[in-house]
Amino acid sequence: MFYIGVNFDITNISAAVVDENRNIIAKESVPTLRHRKLEVIIADMAALVEKTAKKAGLDLEKDINHVGIGCYGSINRKTGVLVYSSYFGLRNIPLIDEIKKFIKIPVFIENDANCYALAESRMGATKGLKNSVLVTIGTAISGGIIVRGEIYHGAFYGAGEFGHHVVVLDGEKCECGRNGCWAAYASSTALVRDARIAAIRHPESKMFEMVNGDVRLMSYKIPFEAAMEDDVYAKDIVYKYARYIALGLINIINILQPDAIAIGGKMFRKNEGFLDVVSKLVSDKTFGQKDTKILLAEMDYDGVLIGASMLEK
Amino acid sequence: MFYIGVNFDITNISAAVVDENRNIIAKESVPTLRHRKLEVIIADMAALVEKTAKKAGLDLEKDINHVGIGCYGSINRKTGVLVYSSYFGLRNIPLIDEIKKFIKIPVFIENDANCYALAESRMGATKGLKNSVLVTIGTAISGGIIVRGEIYHGAFYGAGEFGHHVVVLDGEKCECGRNGCWAAYASSTALVRDARIAAIRHPESKMFEMVNGDVRLMSYKIPFEAAMEDDVYAKDIVYKYARYIALGLINIINILQPDAIAIGGKMFRKNEGFLDVVSKLVSDKTFGQKDTKILLAEMDYDGVLIGASMLEK
Repeated sequence: MFYIGVNFDITNISAAVVDENRNIIAKESVPTLRHRKLEVIIADMAALVEKTAKKAGLDLEKDINHVGIGCYGSINRKTGVLVYSSYFGLRNIPLIDEIKKFIKIPVFIENDANCYALAESRMGATKGLKNSVLVTIGTAISGGIIVRGEIYHGAFYGAGEFGHHVVVLDGEKCECGRNGCWAAYASSTALVRDARIAAIRHPESKMFEMVNGDVRLMSYKIPFEAAMEDDVYAKDIVYKYARYIALGLINIINILQPDAIAIGGKMFRKNEGFLDVVSKLVSDKTFGQKDTKILLAEMDYDGVLIGASMLEK
Repeated sequence: MFYIGVNFDITNISAAVVDENRNIIAKESVPTLRHRKLEVIIADMAALVEKTAKKAGLDLEKDINHVGIGCYGSINRKTGVLVYSSYFGLRNIPLIDEIKKFIKIPVFIENDANCYALAESRMGATKGLKNSVLVTIGTAISGGIIVRGEIYHGAFYGAGEFGHHVVVLDGEKCECGRNGCWAAYASSTALVRDARIAAIRHPESKMFEMVNGDVRLMSYKIPFEAAMEDDVYAKDIVYKYARYIALGLINIINILQPDAIAIGGKMFRKNEGFLDVVSKLVSDKTFGQKDTKILLAEMDYDGVLIGASMLEK
């Protein structure tokens, strides 16, 4: 038997056919073009699912057990309603009903980060652990919580919004409307902001040189690269950034104390030593005597596809 | 059948005999005198248990199904080991083995706040809710998490340390050794600190008058009383304090999104309107569209006794 996992992201929709061991057999994607009408986007998604099945040499209705969709936003797993999605600007959309107009086999839908967390806990970095957390750190921060081997949803399917817990009272403005959220310090967007400020303040910095004096060109990679070349300003920024990340992770540990936290996102994969720096800062400061492990997520964004394919009801 | 619940607190040890509906039939307590040897304290506790059974006209070994103990600190529920207790200054004490030397019927042990959370979720403010949190706000902050109707312990039995999540980077020193923890802003100890500072800065304040100029006499009650008498400084302090409490509650909601948070502690019970102020601040700022309810815990400290009596294995 085969399964299809879909990652319904704000920039792309991806679909993968997986086998019973969750090996990816075929994968396809299309741009989301999210400003179009939802019906049109959903029609594209359904066509993508069909196309991916065909690419794997399979018949959607005969060979695929079910389609699981990981979607950005708060999803009511039971009703298939998209409760809230800030990026899509949607509230209370019966997404599953829309999708069922096109796809005639069982379809399940779940928050994308929850899918990723599920996949990591079944097959990845947190495999076999009872209680774990997945945090993805990129332009935004998202997260999923696994309790006793299952996704923990919270009352209104919005648990795991780790990025929006305040760590600096009256601090930096956050895109959510509050101030001082962890995401406003620990996302790569925050790193870019701080690197821009440092480059402007210190034109002698390698970061300034690397963007040819145009800080609009700053990316999260630049402070890491400049730090590797021993630029003091970049080293300072990257170390502070590691402290901000550690701060939120420690908070998660003091509240949830999971067996492990898996961290996803390109930045960590591409800067190998960085996880160790963060991890050291965490274990120095954790309340209590033993440490929740801080691990690199193993699955990359395929985690959403694989986790989505694992949805069962 | 009857049960005994014990609250092993840092100042007192209490015991209660409860019936099957968890009505308290008899209650007794003794001072903990915690600087004595643990064996001596445990012997006192065992005598207290015996005495409480007698007071209820019952025979401990014949009529009591089991004794449940709610204890300050991280408790390994399975092994009965006290993993860590900062106030008792203890680590890795096989508490259950010590107790079993004296008590010959089944004994179970659990963190006190977890017992309280369990009691509230079975019979109190959060009755029947799937996922709930109990937070007690007093001189310190403690908490318990109920997930799917059961206590959530975390990897090393230390989950729910809500008081020690940082809300103000590099903020006020916390007794845990870190800076800026929620407890350093939202405990009654923090309120007393801030009221002392305000009284010193503003001798024209009613708070200064109420302590006759001796700020050592400040208690958490004074800013509340002065605020009721329209003292601007006290009103400012109390409102800021409400904001600090709300800040941490919002963080808990954005991470765990429980169905409800029950708040325990004398301060909330004795200042009726205060919960509404905090609750309003929380619902104004919660991420997402629906609100986790903020409720007054119903059980007072009997919650620990009742919850302890409910421990089953």
